[in-house]
Amino acid sequence: MKIVLDAMGGDTGLSVNLEGALLASKYFSKSDTIIIVGIKSEIEKYINSKKISFNCNIEIVDAVDNVGMEDSPTKALQEKQESSIAKGLDLVKNKKADAFFSPGNTGVILAFSLLKLGRLRGLDRPAIGIIFPIGKHPIMLDVGATPDAKPKNLYQFALLGTEYIKIMRNIEKPKVGLLSIGEENSKGSVVYQKAFELIKNDKEINFIGNIEGDDFFKNKVDVIVTDGFTGNIVLKFGEGMVHWLKENIIISVKPLPLAIIGIILSIPGILGIPFFLASMKKLLKKISYDEIGGAPLLGVDGLVFVGHGKSNPKAIKSGMLNAKNLVEHNFIGDLKNIIEKRSDSETD
Amino acid sequence: MKIVLDAMGGDTGLSVNLEGALLASKYFSKSDTIIIVGIKSEIEKYINSKKISFNCNIEIVDAVDNVGMEDSPTKALQEKQESSIAKGLDLVKNKKADAFFSPGNTGVILAFSLLKLGRLRGLDRPAIGIIFPIGKHPIMLDVGATPDAKPKNLYQFALLGTEYIKIMRNIEKPKVGLLSIGEENSKGSVVYQKAFELIKNDKEINFIGNIEGDDFFKNKVDVIVTDGFTGNIVLKFGEGMVHWLKENIIISVKPLPLAIIGIILSIPGILGIPFFLASMKKLLKKISYDEIGGAPLLGVDGLVFVGHGKSNPKAIKSGMLNAKNLVEHNFIGDLKNIIEKRSDSETD
Repeated sequence: MKIVLDAMGGDTGLSVNLEGALLASKYFSKSDTIIIVGIKSEIEKYINSKKISFNCNIEIVDAVDNVGMEDSPTKALQEKQESSIAKGLDLVKNKKADAFFSPGNTGVILAFSLLKLGRLRGLDRPAIGIIFPIGKHPIMLDVGATPDAKPKNLYQFALLGTEYIKIMRNIEKPKVGLLSIGEENSKGSVVYQKAFELIKNDKEINFIGNIEGDDFFKNKVDVIVTDGFTGNIVLKFGEGMVHWLKENIIISVKPLPLAIIGIILSIPGILGIPFFLASMKKLLKKISYDEIGGAPLLGVDGLVFVGHGKSNPKAIKSGMLNAKNLVEHNFIGDLKNIIEKRSDSETD
Repeated sequence: MKIVLDAMGGDTGLSVNLEGALLASKYFSKSDTIIIVGIKSEIEKYINSKKISFNCNIEIVDAVDNVGMEDSPTKALQEKQESSIAKGLDLVKNKKADAFFSPGNTGVILAFSLLKLGRLRGLDRPAIGIIFPIGKHPIMLDVGATPDAKPKNLYQFALLGTEYIKIMRNIEKPKVGLLSIGEENSKGSVVYQKAFELIKNDKEINFIGNIEGDDFFKNKVDVIVTDGFTGNIVLKFGEGMVHWLKENIIISVKPLPLAIIGIILSIPGILGIPFFLASMKKLLKKISYDEIGGAPLLGVDGLVFVGHGKSNPKAIKSGMLNAKNLVEHNFIGDLKNIIEKRSDSETD
């Protein structure tokens, strides 16, 4: 098995990505290969200076262009053909690698994936799936690839999410919910009402119906189907709220009257403070997207995983291992069968 | 001034609503009137048994039908013509009252408002605006009245929100943001890209451009424009998250090793625990929608305020006082001018 790592992606860059690959390599066998794509001289310099020794084969592929986290996809497609993203995806396209992982610019990865790998036959639009880190850890898709989703796109997202959870969690019939604004089908927008019918009519999907915004926290489903517009807003709202809570817990501790601080500090009861702070931090860490380790780009003809720009080495490791798991289960092959079976039956 | 209170609405019902009216009456002058609509015998019984004495005039209007919080709007329109919602809105329609407040079923209030009061001339679709309880306390609209918003609807929501914040906060040029998935206009869905242009071209709107999901927590705007589908999902997601945090803070305290509890309990440091719990609760209370006191139903030809079903008396009071404030500022009259001016210029 060969997994490509985009060594240049992410807010921190090379060091985090290479340390992540090192962690991941412990779970690879000696015959597996991690293909590290990026500025070769820098990669070699880091590996040599830190005396990093991987547990599997390593190949380094030189890529000179650098894609920034804010670069526009259109511009990158024109100007960054020699980037680690473009060259890494070429490896997957040419069957020289089984999967591609990058903590880089999602829009650019999506654009190059569509250009290099294309879509799965019968699949109209791709979806980015993220794992929502609460409860059953459902996958929510799409969160940005397809803002103007049509009913058929949403239906296909239900299929993609179902297959993903089946393999990743070993759940036979993942529960699927359509993110809408009321339990009755009549309450959603027109697109969602039509999508509801399409999903309901596919007997292979374990569809429990519409779910609402607060159902994210109620352990109802394994797959949350939404369009890339709504999904992206909910994702960023959640991230923003976690960030806000972290900041405000500290602020709300600050205006403590000095007298009370004096009392607390003067007694062994100071034990209480770190405990409660730790408890809150643990809770907030639980709902941090940093801990998930990558979002699959579903619907392109090849395995592509996008990591969070703020990934730490552990997150890079998780992302690479998720990719490995999907390769081992022939995820793309399965998905092709499922999508093609349905697009064939449509033309019957 | 005459303000109608739907005494039957909400999860708790009569007692909370009447206690709220009592609190509100302290801010009304002797010549003002609160018109309490509901089952007259029950209202009188409660007022007499509690010996409630209001600070302004009280009228009681009998309404025998009861609208449940789960009743469908379609069914209510057919069967609940004698409900407190229908009869209360009749009073506004017939100019016997200046505003209507209810902590009842939002869908039913919306349906009866459209039936009884109609829309403002030139205004295509109404919007429910809620105050987002963080930072500048922006109004977010719509959160459910118009799931399938067209570009023109979103543009008109920007106008409605601007006027509302102007009056309620005394801000001359409220900042308006369009909730989308990227700062550049090219990133949103097609509907949002068109709405962006319409809002941008109205020089009376202080439009700062697109905002994203995490910008809710960054004090960027006074008005957040969105469609009733996305807005409702974000609203319920936020409510669900606050609820989840409250529950999980308690749970995460529970598995404390007994030894540590012993140490903490045996020393005066126990002071630390209630402090941190109180600090967290304060933070969560700050972001609870219960504290806001009502969402305006904007775009109908009359002042209608919907309170949260879980309102406490304080929330009922705030809602009624918000309604009073808008009446005093001739909000509906102003809004009519603003909307009509634009629909006239369109036909020029």
